[in-house]
Amino acid sequence: MPRFPKIAERTNHITGSVFEKFRSKVEAHGSDLVNLHIGDAYAPPPYAIPIDPRFMKMYPRFNRYTDTFGVYELREALATKLQTENQLDARPTNIMMTAGACNALNVSVQTLVDPGEDVLLLSPYWPFFRGMVGLAGGRVIEVPFYTRLYEEPDLDIAAYLEGYLTAKTVALYANTPNNPSGKVLNKRQLRQIADFARQNRLWIISDEAYDGMTFDDHVHLSIGSLPEMFEQTLSIFTFSKVYMFSGLRLGYVVTTDALLKNLNKIMVHQLYSPATVAQQMMVEPVKTRSLWSTRFVEHFWEIRDMFVANLKISLQVPEGTYYLFFSIEEHLRGREYWQVIDECLQAGVTVAPGEDFGKDYAQWIRICFAGEPPDRVELAVQRLNRIFPP
Amino acid sequence: MPRFPKIAERTNHITGSVFEKFRSKVEAHGSDLVNLHIGDAYAPPPYAIPIDPRFMKMYPRFNRYTDTFGVYELREALATKLQTENQLDARPTNIMMTAGACNALNVSVQTLVDPGEDVLLLSPYWPFFRGMVGLAGGRVIEVPFYTRLYEEPDLDIAAYLEGYLTAKTVALYANTPNNPSGKVLNKRQLRQIADFARQNRLWIISDEAYDGMTFDDHVHLSIGSLPEMFEQTLSIFTFSKVYMFSGLRLGYVVTTDALLKNLNKIMVHQLYSPATVAQQMMVEPVKTRSLWSTRFVEHFWEIRDMFVANLKISLQVPEGTYYLFFSIEEHLRGREYWQVIDECLQAGVTVAPGEDFGKDYAQWIRICFAGEPPDRVELAVQRLNRIFPP
Repeated sequence: MPRFPKIAERTNHITGSVFEKFRSKVEAHGSDLVNLHIGDAYAPPPYAIPIDPRFMKMYPRFNRYTDTFGVYELREALATKLQTENQLDARPTNIMMTAGACNALNVSVQTLVDPGEDVLLLSPYWPFFRGMVGLAGGRVIEVPFYTRLYEEPDLDIAAYLEGYLTAKTVALYANTPNNPSGKVLNKRQLRQIADFARQNRLWIISDEAYDGMTFDDHVHLSIGSLPEMFEQTLSIFTFSKVYMFSGLRLGYVVTTDALLKNLNKIMVHQLYSPATVAQQMMVEPVKTRSLWSTRFVEHFWEIRDMFVANLKISLQVPEGTYYLFFSIEEHLRGREYWQVIDECLQAGVTVAPGEDFGKDYAQWIRICFAGEPPDRVELAVQRLNRIFPP
Repeated sequence: MPRFPKIAERTNHITGSVFEKFRSKVEAHGSDLVNLHIGDAYAPPPYAIPIDPRFMKMYPRFNRYTDTFGVYELREALATKLQTENQLDARPTNIMMTAGACNALNVSVQTLVDPGEDVLLLSPYWPFFRGMVGLAGGRVIEVPFYTRLYEEPDLDIAAYLEGYLTAKTVALYANTPNNPSGKVLNKRQLRQIADFARQNRLWIISDEAYDGMTFDDHVHLSIGSLPEMFEQTLSIFTFSKVYMFSGLRLGYVVTTDALLKNLNKIMVHQLYSPATVAQQMMVEPVKTRSLWSTRFVEHFWEIRDMFVANLKISLQVPEGTYYLFFSIEEHLRGREYWQVIDECLQAGVTVAPGEDFGKDYAQWIRICFAGEPPDRVELAVQRLNRIFPP
């Protein structure tokens, strides 16, 4: 059975960067070495670029290929952040930069899941993950989870998950803080998931895109920080959420050196590496995060409270992320689900349909309360209240 | 037989962006619409970013997700460039932005090649392409080609390729100007490849990363510009070479709207889209390309001539790209191939080993003559002449 610590067969048929075999010798050589092995031009672009000239001087190789694992200086800054804020035992060599969490998740699935294998998806889940498993030839098993935990916080998780386990299950996809439900898993819940994964030798793909975006007294915890869980977990982060820079397409995956080498083999075949200049631009923001991230979270916390107070639908208040997720079944008043989605659009509000987040959520909708300025969000609440009168 | 116009089975099991279904309705609505369907924050990043403030003002959504096909303004500029410089009949809707040509090639292979199918690789070839076919479960058939055309320019290409065709062949990978051989295919040669592909209903994956980087009287031609070939060809370009910005990880693929929709389904599962801000930064350089690209090419043309004149090995002068590719078999003088590569490294020059470019090239090496400043390249020539005395 190809479970932890085994990985997908496809990784045996590819090699990483063709220059990897020279890495140690090249590094030993120093600056005297003339590098003619890589296909890249020495000079900067000969046209105007809207980047601060001081930055380009500080990073003279900003326009060139970089280490396919990522810019080392950024991975150093992230290792410090992961150790202090996430209690993850990560060194720079445990980190590979990716084109957003999306890319990190896809590379993880390709590395772990072979055709015919099963992956447990705790639902509701981020929509594209389902397709990623399908592209690897795997099958998803949906486990209604985060919404269930709101109803039953003391659920015996290990016993519950056991009911969904198959002989072909190789990995489990967890996501906390959860998009779309806003659920933030607590230590007891994570511990039970971890125990279940260890007993059954399942890889854990831990999507932590909303790291740091929690409200009230909820705190984000990394499952990879639990005893003995680091080596069995792929912890995935992004610059799209708390860093508010989704347009940079930058994220990273954290795991053991050995597994990372295999993730890198997939990565270099998908896009070689994420952008060098994007990575260099994030070195400082990683170091200064504590100075600005609190204000950011408080701002969206206020918007959440405004939205929940004014929307005339009773719903579960999200513990983290910037989403509200709720069933509109009791508010249909004889209308079809899709008719209501269309009425929202006609009234001037777009919402995300629930079926994308799992087959059990076809009557739900997801609303992002951060995507527009507060006055526009208030306008949306008024419009929604006309579609869903109390 | 799953050849053109059929595509890979795996594309049937995934959908594109979950928001695609609302695209036309959302576009019809205008600015009054409050968009709460996508997971993104409205405000700019709350920390210092080394980007020109005027640029951020011009592109206020620089930090946000964009159309997964790419920033429209950039695709408009590229469509004009493709029509005028490449004679490709491309509109903006025929273009999808990717994370470099690497990503465009991988997305193409995943869209076209199912497990058990064959792909003809004209060799020598760009190394990662081989692995991409393997990751899709396909098999590569290597066809010694570009080096052969140097020896025999009038080769009957259609008859020659016929000898490698199998019943399971679905696509052909061509690359002109060719990395590593520097061969630039002429119109007669492209026409013969096109005729062969049409007769056998093979998709053509046309890697044109070195578009515009040709010397002497050689001109780059796009196979997709030949009569009736646009719909059967995926033309792939990048900002890594003539634009000298490999560190931006930006490229694009050009084909029919219908095929592009399927490429996009793979794309959104791999990385969602390439960076918004990277795309916006390239709008102006695409428009001004003719003003600076000639000087760039002339500069590397001079370095090519210097390298060829001073290196004491007889070799085929490359017609394009920034590589020299030659066999060192007659210069081994009793040494093993890998011993010589190691001697190069010890002498202070890294070269790329030939076997990565195809099984017929195990005794060859590739040198990039653009990766270091001219004085360093001259130093490398002196060092190489000591390893390969005449």
